[in-house]
Amino acid sequence: MSVTTPKGFAAAGIAAGIKQNGGPDLALVLNKGPRRAAAGVFTANRVKAAPVLWSEQVVRGGEIAAVVLNSGGANACTGPRGFQDTHATAEKAAEVLSALATGEGPDDVGAGQVAVASTGLIGVTLPMDRLLSGIGKAAAELSEHGGEKAALAIKTTDTVHKTAVATGPGGAWTVGGMAKGAGMLAPGLATMLVVLTTDADVESADLDRALRAATRTTFDRVDSDGCMSTNDTVLLLASGASGTVPAYEPFAEAVREVCADLARQLIGDAEGASKDIRIEVVGAASEDDAVEVGRSIARNNLLKCAIHGEDPNWGRVLSAIGTTGAAFEPDRLNVAINDVWVCRNGSFGEDRDLVDMRFREVRVTADLAAGDESAVIWTNDLTADYVHENSAYSS
Amino acid sequence: MSVTTPKGFAAAGIAAGIKQNGGPDLALVLNKGPRRAAAGVFTANRVKAAPVLWSEQVVRGGEIAAVVLNSGGANACTGPRGFQDTHATAEKAAEVLSALATGEGPDDVGAGQVAVASTGLIGVTLPMDRLLSGIGKAAAELSEHGGEKAALAIKTTDTVHKTAVATGPGGAWTVGGMAKGAGMLAPGLATMLVVLTTDADVESADLDRALRAATRTTFDRVDSDGCMSTNDTVLLLASGASGTVPAYEPFAEAVREVCADLARQLIGDAEGASKDIRIEVVGAASEDDAVEVGRSIARNNLLKCAIHGEDPNWGRVLSAIGTTGAAFEPDRLNVAINDVWVCRNGSFGEDRDLVDMRFREVRVTADLAAGDESAVIWTNDLTADYVHENSAYSS
Repeated sequence: MSVTTPKGFAAAGIAAGIKQNGGPDLALVLNKGPRRAAAGVFTANRVKAAPVLWSEQVVRGGEIAAVVLNSGGANACTGPRGFQDTHATAEKAAEVLSALATGEGPDDVGAGQVAVASTGLIGVTLPMDRLLSGIGKAAAELSEHGGEKAALAIKTTDTVHKTAVATGPGGAWTVGGMAKGAGMLAPGLATMLVVLTTDADVESADLDRALRAATRTTFDRVDSDGCMSTNDTVLLLASGASGTVPAYEPFAEAVREVCADLARQLIGDAEGASKDIRIEVVGAASEDDAVEVGRSIARNNLLKCAIHGEDPNWGRVLSAIGTTGAAFEPDRLNVAINDVWVCRNGSFGEDRDLVDMRFREVRVTADLAAGDESAVIWTNDLTADYVHENSAYSS
Repeated sequence: MSVTTPKGFAAAGIAAGIKQNGGPDLALVLNKGPRRAAAGVFTANRVKAAPVLWSEQVVRGGEIAAVVLNSGGANACTGPRGFQDTHATAEKAAEVLSALATGEGPDDVGAGQVAVASTGLIGVTLPMDRLLSGIGKAAAELSEHGGEKAALAIKTTDTVHKTAVATGPGGAWTVGGMAKGAGMLAPGLATMLVVLTTDADVESADLDRALRAATRTTFDRVDSDGCMSTNDTVLLLASGASGTVPAYEPFAEAVREVCADLARQLIGDAEGASKDIRIEVVGAASEDDAVEVGRSIARNNLLKCAIHGEDPNWGRVLSAIGTTGAAFEPDRLNVAINDVWVCRNGSFGEDRDLVDMRFREVRVTADLAAGDESAVIWTNDLTADYVHENSAYSS
């Protein structure tokens, strides 16, 4: 049920001493081939962490042999030193993994085939001695059953580790994945590190196409707190070990399914949240309009507080819609909360006392009455616990 | 020290029974002339409350004889009935005030000269019987010393009433003002109702020019919680009672001064806030860039939480800057918190332990190193008290 479910992958997760609490903080994922095809999607933030800048270059090369991921430090805003540290991490992994070569798959690993992903506090350099010796230790523990341990090692404020899997027709191939992310979750991805693997035999160009299509409607529509990270990374690695070349559509659907599953898990574990809010915008003139309106609603702190208080405050939905440039007429807007249409034609509708908001999942439906397009955005409520988690200590 | 400081104005504030707690909830401001020139600036939200739609029409006519303001209900998203209620409010005020005419100033008041402003919960109709009888009561209490009472009657979650005044050269004329606003404070004004008065003899076109220039750099740069209201209204009324026609520049400066004073008071009274945050963006290629970056920083929930926790978390400033389209190079960005440059050239700078954040006002300076333009945006921290105020009951 993770990155080692597809054939051709090994993984490990260990405690390298990067985190001060001594917990697992270093993960390694190895693609044993025969293929090393890969694709990646990264944060849209213009302030990018060193590992993002590095891994973008690796993906451009079209092959990923291994991924090194660490929690305990984002290596963002760390200047030239930070980039050197990421480079040294990739060099070390290449050296260690090449020494392990068995002759079974592609043997040598070049530093340019090692992607790096980091998560944790911005503006702090990593303890490189511990990280580099940790890579040796992790390589020694690489296992075809190591996926869960790897998923555990990338957690930061996550309360649970996140993994998912989808299987192709007849079980001919699988897509597996792991994710971390609990705060700074916003579009252009969230603060998330995600590694997806597949044993399907797919070329990098098709991996890229499938991954972009999948993230566009899953991770990109998770907007927990409106804050876009410097480190977001989603990688998709194909080993080809199943020996099956899949048709594009079912493969892309499996990738989307794993991304959607992981995205939903991210929302379910968002910092301090007590409600998962599914915002569906319907009746939009365009999908872009639907997404713009959904994001505006998702980012309205007053609405997020109201939902925390189980108050179906549809006026805050309307005032959020009103700040967008989407096509709509104010007096034609309709809003449902948990399927009760509390706002009709821009004014009060059904009795708000009919809305039952006791459950964790809350559904907000905004009908723009301007067309046939729609989109779903996920967010969370805003709680005192969120404030506490993000004010009581640096993260 | 309020709307009745300038000559030619009378005001009243009473309890009409609109608020369930029986507190003051209805204010009336009368321009006794000889001039009735006026200008107004309204919310940029496309979902506009009925009184905003009405008052925009009144301002277009160029004359305001009186303003009726109520707390206890926003009359927003109330459909055609809401607009009829606003219309009836203006008709009633015109009737009552015309009956009071003394022959001193312009006597008759037409409904088209009565602006209306409302604040409170969205989506609820006003108790019109109480409101209309309240207008008669307020008119009977109109006084040249009624400014403070009027300011008290427009409070919602405000803990204090807000007034300000500025005087022209040699005391020849004055500008006075009152404001309400404590939450849903965001650009395109905040949830604020503001009435400014002056006894300077100024035509509507110049009032409009001075008011737009003033609000652009004051109320429009208050961004307490990123939520834009449906009811924001800023009115400027000139009575001409001083008999002095001022030069434009000092008059515009006095209007700006009163707006800046009131805007600062709004930030100081924002719901649940424990810190007032002054974000100054310098070194920008354009003023628009500076404003865009300032707003992005002001809306970053994670930074707002960090400042609440007195944590100089400059990484969250950088990640907010990185989401904008402003001109900058990530490795040239500098950030100071309370004048300590904790980030230099996109990486760590001075020791963050040097930052003293114990006081209520916190200064964040972001240097884009891309030009000579700058802008100041004000916001507040994000606190558990904010969450409580906005989740525990409808507002």
